[in-house]
Amino acid sequence: MRTIELGTYQISIGDFEVPLRQLLQAKEYSNVFVIVDENTKRFCLPLLRQVVAEVKLIEIAAGEENKGIDTCQVIWTQLMEQKADRNSLVLNLGGGVIGDMGGFCASTFKRGMDFIQMPSTLLSQVDASIGGKLGIDFLQVKNSIGLFKDPQAVLVDIRFLRTLPANEIRSGFAEIVKHSLIADREQWDRIKLIRNLQDIDWGDYVYPSLLIKQQVVEQDPFEKGIRKALNFGHTVGHAIEGLALESSQPLLHGEAIAIGMICESWLSHKIIGLPATELAEITDFFLRIYDSYDLSHLPYDKLIQLMANDKKNIGKAINFSLLPKAGSVEINQTCAPSLIMESLDYYQSQLQLV
Amino acid sequence: MRTIELGTYQISIGDFEVPLRQLLQAKEYSNVFVIVDENTKRFCLPLLRQVVAEVKLIEIAAGEENKGIDTCQVIWTQLMEQKADRNSLVLNLGGGVIGDMGGFCASTFKRGMDFIQMPSTLLSQVDASIGGKLGIDFLQVKNSIGLFKDPQAVLVDIRFLRTLPANEIRSGFAEIVKHSLIADREQWDRIKLIRNLQDIDWGDYVYPSLLIKQQVVEQDPFEKGIRKALNFGHTVGHAIEGLALESSQPLLHGEAIAIGMICESWLSHKIIGLPATELAEITDFFLRIYDSYDLSHLPYDKLIQLMANDKKNIGKAINFSLLPKAGSVEINQTCAPSLIMESLDYYQSQLQLV
Repeated sequence: MRTIELGTYQISIGDFEVPLRQLLQAKEYSNVFVIVDENTKRFCLPLLRQVVAEVKLIEIAAGEENKGIDTCQVIWTQLMEQKADRNSLVLNLGGGVIGDMGGFCASTFKRGMDFIQMPSTLLSQVDASIGGKLGIDFLQVKNSIGLFKDPQAVLVDIRFLRTLPANEIRSGFAEIVKHSLIADREQWDRIKLIRNLQDIDWGDYVYPSLLIKQQVVEQDPFEKGIRKALNFGHTVGHAIEGLALESSQPLLHGEAIAIGMICESWLSHKIIGLPATELAEITDFFLRIYDSYDLSHLPYDKLIQLMANDKKNIGKAINFSLLPKAGSVEINQTCAPSLIMESLDYYQSQLQLV
Repeated sequence: MRTIELGTYQISIGDFEVPLRQLLQAKEYSNVFVIVDENTKRFCLPLLRQVVAEVKLIEIAAGEENKGIDTCQVIWTQLMEQKADRNSLVLNLGGGVIGDMGGFCASTFKRGMDFIQMPSTLLSQVDASIGGKLGIDFLQVKNSIGLFKDPQAVLVDIRFLRTLPANEIRSGFAEIVKHSLIADREQWDRIKLIRNLQDIDWGDYVYPSLLIKQQVVEQDPFEKGIRKALNFGHTVGHAIEGLALESSQPLLHGEAIAIGMICESWLSHKIIGLPATELAEITDFFLRIYDSYDLSHLPYDKLIQLMANDKKNIGKAINFSLLPKAGSVEINQTCAPSLIMESLDYYQSQLQLV
């Protein structure tokens, strides 16, 4: 069991049983609610039931397309009908959708219930569950409604990853790569040698990745400044993810961010001098691990529009966090729409489309 | 101009022009949004425009029945379409509905924009705009979705009351009476002599009433304990308000709370010894100032159900704040449903129904 302190709460990395028992003993909750989807109900809930026998279940459908105000109304209604009060606890047992949305619903139900994040995907274990950012998508803009609120704890249990499909593993891995690219050159030098994601012991990667995220979040919990560093790849990536979601070829978050990191590495090369060799290494690495994705079916002007609505923007300029070199990052960079479109063309030019 | 400090912000009582100018100069906002309804657009916005020429308007329909998640979606959509960013400001120019809901929308849009409360009704000037409680109604339960978040400032301008209809004045006055009943015996002794609400200089009542609320809120910003004192009259009153709202005879908030205070004074008499003479004084006072309301068309069991869903409850017991005597209050009292129903009968028995 390893732990990381972050603000008012602790992240535990290891089997969840002991820390969860301690949390439940420390505070007498009137009820324990568990939010699950069909996957975590099947694969993760049985483990949880061994610790908490009496839980009230709230089941929602899996998938980013359900991370909206309609599902919130389902969750709030369930909480109301199953008599949740302010002394009840919500356990968010799932990936980023359940963590972000379940945390948002818990934080706003009767003006705030306690909640614990139990991330079940690699993506949520290294990224979404950490840092107190909660929210839902609105009008196709990801996480555009939400708030900052710390959970009581985050319980990261690697056993949940065993049943995860390969594309979900790839999706989470993108954030691990991102953390190394913005802050840990040595880790990137190890990661870039990886040829495929089978047989990887995720324990070796989750903990160091969380440490980087913790250090950034701790300096800037409300994303006024340096926390934007974590946004590398996300300005372009979020927009691609948003449009892909409603196309016939949806992408998982990390898959979209991987494309975003290629585009934004190209922008980094053009604007703040990321060396051409490093751009090539980053591009080759992502194209080796991730499937090619043809961007030509997504209207570029709509992508730019979505980027213009990003929360990190101030006024009209589109905000980026870019790499001057691998292992470091500069925030508050801006790019003209025409250059952003060129970066999408760069990605397209690198594909060997069949 | 009088001011009251509360947490991180200031309440200004007096003309709003000077403090608003100072606030806008201190922080360079990229945009100023104003949320209005048809009333404040007509009566209050012209004054505001003299200070801020360029505002982006968001207009919603007046009335408690619009304080729901649907109207939130209208506000969020407007903020999105009119390009609000995290450096924009929201001015909530209206009564409790606009203050609570506009504050909730601002606090959750892109995980949080600044907002200023400009309460335009007596009720919101002495109550709703103070203390950082934001929210909306959900499934007929008032304020059941929301959060605690402080505004940048509260600007209380008595001039806004000039155009207020008599029932709105009565509604706000109920909270002024409540503040005196729970915490200021001398003020209650003055108030109980009032025969009607014409010709009252509200400046004399708003400031002392706000001082009481500030003292209570400051001790307990997140309603873990003593802040529940402010709940006197509200356990029964909220439930009546909720059911009345969907009947053919809706009540304003303070009108319902006035009935709630009569019922809960009777409960105070039965449970913690409020003297019979004081119960009679309180009852006579409210029945003199407020219209009679026949409760017999509201199903009592539904009223009890709504009370059982109140945020302040812990577990299954219905929570009250009651008066051992006029001018003081005891929190965390509980009553059996049968006794609560008797208190409704007490109210009914006091009416001279035509």
